[in-house]
Amino acid sequence: MEICRAGPNAPRKVPNDTQDTARMIIDIHGHYTTEPQALHDFRKRQLAGNSSPPAPDLGISDDELRTSVEPQLRLQKERGSDLTIFSPRASGMAHHLGTEAIGIEWSRVCNDLIHRISTLLPGNFAGAGQLPQHPGAPPKNCIPELERMVTELGFVGVNLNPDPSGGYWTGPPLTDPDWYPLYEKLCELDVPAMIHVSSSCNPNFHFTGAHYINADTTAFMQLLQGDLFKDFPKLRFVIPHGGGAVPFHWGRYRGLAQEMKKPLLADHLLGNVFFDTCVYHLPGIELLAKVIPVDNILFASEMLGAVKGIDPETAHHYDDVKRYVEQVEMLSVADRRKIFETNARRVYPRLDAKLTARASADRGH
Amino acid sequence: MEICRAGPNAPRKVPNDTQDTARMIIDIHGHYTTEPQALHDFRKRQLAGNSSPPAPDLGISDDELRTSVEPQLRLQKERGSDLTIFSPRASGMAHHLGTEAIGIEWSRVCNDLIHRISTLLPGNFAGAGQLPQHPGAPPKNCIPELERMVTELGFVGVNLNPDPSGGYWTGPPLTDPDWYPLYEKLCELDVPAMIHVSSSCNPNFHFTGAHYINADTTAFMQLLQGDLFKDFPKLRFVIPHGGGAVPFHWGRYRGLAQEMKKPLLADHLLGNVFFDTCVYHLPGIELLAKVIPVDNILFASEMLGAVKGIDPETAHHYDDVKRYVEQVEMLSVADRRKIFETNARRVYPRLDAKLTARASADRGH
Repeated sequence: MEICRAGPNAPRKVPNDTQDTARMIIDIHGHYTTEPQALHDFRKRQLAGNSSPPAPDLGISDDELRTSVEPQLRLQKERGSDLTIFSPRASGMAHHLGTEAIGIEWSRVCNDLIHRISTLLPGNFAGAGQLPQHPGAPPKNCIPELERMVTELGFVGVNLNPDPSGGYWTGPPLTDPDWYPLYEKLCELDVPAMIHVSSSCNPNFHFTGAHYINADTTAFMQLLQGDLFKDFPKLRFVIPHGGGAVPFHWGRYRGLAQEMKKPLLADHLLGNVFFDTCVYHLPGIELLAKVIPVDNILFASEMLGAVKGIDPETAHHYDDVKRYVEQVEMLSVADRRKIFETNARRVYPRLDAKLTARASADRGH
Repeated sequence: MEICRAGPNAPRKVPNDTQDTARMIIDIHGHYTTEPQALHDFRKRQLAGNSSPPAPDLGISDDELRTSVEPQLRLQKERGSDLTIFSPRASGMAHHLGTEAIGIEWSRVCNDLIHRISTLLPGNFAGAGQLPQHPGAPPKNCIPELERMVTELGFVGVNLNPDPSGGYWTGPPLTDPDWYPLYEKLCELDVPAMIHVSSSCNPNFHFTGAHYINADTTAFMQLLQGDLFKDFPKLRFVIPHGGGAVPFHWGRYRGLAQEMKKPLLADHLLGNVFFDTCVYHLPGIELLAKVIPVDNILFASEMLGAVKGIDPETAHHYDDVKRYVEQVEMLSVADRRKIFETNARRVYPRLDAKLTARASADRGH
């Protein structure tokens, strides 16, 4: 089996931090949760076995797409972020529904909408895609759509579901060789994967309150037990929602790695594994900043996501995460710049290339 | 269906804090992980379909039992804790192995050993039991063993497995009426249940690194979604391992409760749900103390448990949790006394009664 070339670990590249571009705030985790009704209608028809009209003709106009993301644009402006890495609704992926063929069509439809939005509003959104995973199907079946979304649609990242069964965890762990062909392609294309489950069909697991957080914790522990990044030194995973339970139990994970005779977590995993900041209160963000190296923390809010309300304790939205990051006293200005921008540009090199090209074009005008 | 009587919520009783007893440090979460080989041998024979000699005659002497818990006694002394609420090895419960009849016998054998140890060393150990749960079997089948362990063996608590399938989560959530007969009995006996899974037969979930922590998070979210404590105002659950991911994501849980139109978490759950301190680094314990009310935090270390090594960053054992609790600056002396003793005596009233009776007897001498 060919694996992607070893060599200097991509995440350890010097951050692209010296170039002459305006500083910006990149939110690496936003889902398209304000889709037009036509998309939901299509999905219903599709799962009922009737996907006419054919997928490419959902009849959604560019104006409708622009209107649909006005809430996100308003929040970007109000909260002071610039660009969101934008992917289809996570719970909407629902890899466990329908056949594999239905999933392939559904992924293409969803990814195409993300592509149109990021083409219409390139200053606000960069695309990340959903993979047509299917319970029991080999992950390599997703390679054609992965290649399409990156090379044709210009996506900078992808969401990878560690449990396509939707809460029964019947597939193999992320360290299983079944996943390797997909990892080879991720390395070849130089795009990171966010490890993100979808909806739960298991009544034990509320999707955003249990399944998402459990999956984050589970993925990290699978990686800790394995040696995946020896085989794929350039592979990069982003674990969302602050890494699930991992930072809170950082001592447990350091201790388990030690008992398993693994290297220190910094050497074993942190060249390849990154955490976002989707943690919706200041004490959580403080803990994250205290235990996870700043080079491994990427700003994200998943706004218009799991928790949209206003926190009565602060009178601000729970998911206005930028406020928390700004309030963490131990972070220096340089640390915040890493979290808000340069870490994202390092972990998502195709985003960095886009931003660099745009800055260069702007200077040309 | 008869449910236990409503009335003043047991956990809201005034702590039994004014009586004239010496102050002590109670570790509410220890498992018997140093069992004699004869117990392991019995289990192997049992699962192989040959449980002779019959369960009660494992041939383990009192001296062997005393010797087997010397590591725990030494650590109690070295670290300065007094009494451990002691239950059978959590991963050993393995409710998914064998038949229900095998599980019933196994639970009796394990509980009997805990009973012998807590009888031999009553100043060091108080018993908590394992239930003979079985995947697919109604939880009410556990009632005879629950009654036996409390009324005959004098146990003060019980471990309740929210996923007897061992990592596939095929049973109903904790809020399902299937569980209600067991909850009625818990209320009637006035013993709390620690929500604790066992080993995982799902290769996705490392037991102590993923399954345990996920189960804690999952249980809390199930309780958040439901209204269980309206039906059982006296029921008390202890969620171990610091509550899984819950304190780290306290903003998420507050926000989800708000979106679901539930009361504030303090009113909705914290009269009945308690968190232990099995979190193996200072920043985690600091977060726990910051977001969870001090009345809901019970000292525990699960020593000789998941993480037995020495933390190179502190040169102390990861699981010497008492040190962390003592280092949290925001906790007052009174707060620490709640965490170390009086909360445990309030949540485990049968333990309080034992300690009070012993103190009274000591005064009589």
